[in-house]
Amino acid sequence: MRNTQVLVDRLPEGKLRADDYRVVESDAPEPDEGQVLVETTAVAIGAGTRAGLQGSASYAGAPQTGVVMNGTGVGRVVASRSDAVAEGAAVMAPTGWQQYSVHDARSVSVIPDAHDPIDYLGPLGINGLTAYFGLLDVGQVQEGQCVMVSAAAGSVGHLVGQIAKIRGARAVGVCGSAEKGARLTGELGFDAAVSYRDDDFRAALKAATPDRVDVYFDNTGGPVLEAALRRMNSGGRIVCCGVVSQYDTDTPGPGPSGVPGLLVNKGLTMRGFLVFEFRDRFAEARDEIHGWLQSGALQSWTDAYDGLASAPDAFVDLLAGGNVGTRIVRVRE
Amino acid sequence: MRNTQVLVDRLPEGKLRADDYRVVESDAPEPDEGQVLVETTAVAIGAGTRAGLQGSASYAGAPQTGVVMNGTGVGRVVASRSDAVAEGAAVMAPTGWQQYSVHDARSVSVIPDAHDPIDYLGPLGINGLTAYFGLLDVGQVQEGQCVMVSAAAGSVGHLVGQIAKIRGARAVGVCGSAEKGARLTGELGFDAAVSYRDDDFRAALKAATPDRVDVYFDNTGGPVLEAALRRMNSGGRIVCCGVVSQYDTDTPGPGPSGVPGLLVNKGLTMRGFLVFEFRDRFAEARDEIHGWLQSGALQSWTDAYDGLASAPDAFVDLLAGGNVGTRIVRVRE
Repeated sequence: MRNTQVLVDRLPEGKLRADDYRVVESDAPEPDEGQVLVETTAVAIGAGTRAGLQGSASYAGAPQTGVVMNGTGVGRVVASRSDAVAEGAAVMAPTGWQQYSVHDARSVSVIPDAHDPIDYLGPLGINGLTAYFGLLDVGQVQEGQCVMVSAAAGSVGHLVGQIAKIRGARAVGVCGSAEKGARLTGELGFDAAVSYRDDDFRAALKAATPDRVDVYFDNTGGPVLEAALRRMNSGGRIVCCGVVSQYDTDTPGPGPSGVPGLLVNKGLTMRGFLVFEFRDRFAEARDEIHGWLQSGALQSWTDAYDGLASAPDAFVDLLAGGNVGTRIVRVRE
Repeated sequence: MRNTQVLVDRLPEGKLRADDYRVVESDAPEPDEGQVLVETTAVAIGAGTRAGLQGSASYAGAPQTGVVMNGTGVGRVVASRSDAVAEGAAVMAPTGWQQYSVHDARSVSVIPDAHDPIDYLGPLGINGLTAYFGLLDVGQVQEGQCVMVSAAAGSVGHLVGQIAKIRGARAVGVCGSAEKGARLTGELGFDAAVSYRDDDFRAALKAATPDRVDVYFDNTGGPVLEAALRRMNSGGRIVCCGVVSQYDTDTPGPGPSGVPGLLVNKGLTMRGFLVFEFRDRFAEARDEIHGWLQSGALQSWTDAYDGLASAPDAFVDLLAGGNVGTRIVRVRE
C-alpha cells in the first residue's frame, strides 16, 4: 500500500514558500502491537505550526527538514493492533500531512458517532477548545464586557467572537479586510469589525470600542496588540493565544511598546496558554460546544483545499491571511 | 510662617537634571475646615514619580510645571481643623517636596505610636506594601519556588527578596553592581545576586537560577525583563511593578522581545498592579510586616539625604542607580 507524504524540504528563509515542501511517495507504515494505522480524511492547516519552522524555541521543539509536516488530522482506522481502538473508528490524530500514519492507540481520540469528524478540525477540535478555554478560563469574560479578538475571521477567532456573544458580551473583531469584517458582523453576529490594514485602524478601533476593551484575545501580537493595549480598561485581561504576525519571518519584530508600562498603570493581566493545560476538561467543553452547534448558536466556517499536494499552497495563503474560518485540506473524499 | 517648596521648573528633556527643579519660599498654607496642616519630617524619593514627568500617560496624570514635586512624606500635624486627626499626630501624607502642606483629614494616615514614622516611607509604607502584595498576591509565590527580582537593592526590591525568604522561596536579586549584590547576599540573605551591568549577565543569571524562575518581580522592564522571560519556568508569573529602565528618558525603548510569543509557549502570566488595589488590606499587611521587623526577619535599608534642597540631587542619583534601599530626604530633624 503506497503512502503520499508532504515533507519539509528546507527551512524557510523569510516568508514560507510552497516549494519549501516536497511531495513524496513511499510504502505505507504498518502498526506495531498497541498501534493503529489511520487513513487521513482531512488535515487542518494551522498558523501555529509555522512557529515550528523557526529557529527560535517553540513548544513544538527544534525545526527539522526531511520530516513529514506536522498537523492535526481526522481519519479512519484501517488497521488496529489495539483493543482500545477498533478498526473502522473515526479518530482525530497528529497525522501530519500524509495519507497513512501509525499512532499509539493512546495518541488518537476516537470521535463519537454523534459528532461530525470534520468538526474535530474546527469547533470540536483544537481550534474550538482554544477559543473556549482561552475566552472563558484565561479571559474570564463576563456578561456585558467588551471582547476584542484579532485574526477574527480565522480558525480560532471566528469562534471566539461567537462564544463572546453566547456569553452576553460585546464582540469586536479585527481582521484583514472589509469583506471579512462584513461577514463577521453580517453572518456571525459580531457587533463590529475593523480591518488592521485600514489607514485609520486606530480611530476605527476606538469607534468600535466606545466602552473600551475588557478582554482582548490576541492571535497576532504585533501592531494590533499594541493598539489593544491602549484600548484596554483598567483591570482588563489579554489572552495570549498566538502570534501570527511574527510567524512568517525569520526576523521577528520587537515586543509591543507599552509592555510592561501599561500593564502597571492599568493593572492589566497578560496570560499565555496552550490549550493542552485544559485537557482534563476537553470532554465537558466539547459537550457544550456541540450543543451550540446543534442549536445554531455557533457557526463553523470551513475553508477547504483538495488533495495533499495543495497543502503547501494552502499554508502559504493562510499565512498571508487568505483564509476565512478553519482551513482544511481534504485528503480523501 | 514661611514654607520651603521644591517645584518642577521644567519637564526634563532626556535624562532628569537637578536644575529641572527650583526651590522657592512662600507663606505656609492654612488648613480649612476638615483639613490639617502637616510639617514634613521626611519624604521618600521614588523612581515611579519620574513617570509623572513624562509626556506619556501615567497613573499620575499629565505632567505639569510650576507645581510642587509630588511624593509621599511623613510628618507631624501642627494644626488641625478636623476631629478625626489630632494636633501632634504623626502622619503619612502626599506631602510632596515641601515643608508644610495642608490635607483633607481623610487623605492622611495616622501612624500608631507603636510604629516608627520613618518606616512609613519604607517597609510599612507604599514600598513595603508593594513588595508584600506584589509578591504574595500578584506573584502567588509558593514555598520552594525561585523568585527573581530586579532593582533588588532598591526600595521595593530589597524587601521583595527578604519576603521571598520568609516564605521559604529562593531569592535571586538583579542589581547594578557587585557591591550591592554582596550586601544583598551578605546582609539580607539573598541566595544569589547578579549585576545587570556584567558582560556575562545572562550566563550569571543562568548560573544563579539552576531550577529557572517561578516568579519574576519586575521593577525595571527593559533588558532584564527580556532575560527573565527566557529563564521562566512554564506556568511562571511575572509581577509588573515598575519600569525604572524606561522612566529617565523621553524616548522609551521598544517592548521586550518574546512578548507575547514566550507567554504562549510557556503559559506565562504577566500582571501589572498598583498597590492601591489592595488598600482594604493595608492594615493586616502592616501588622504582618511590623512583626517581621520586630523579630529581625525583615531589615529595612534607608539611604538618607539632608534638607529639601538636596531632593533634586537625591532623585537624579536614584535614577542613575545610586541608592541602596529606600531613599529619603530628611526635612526636619
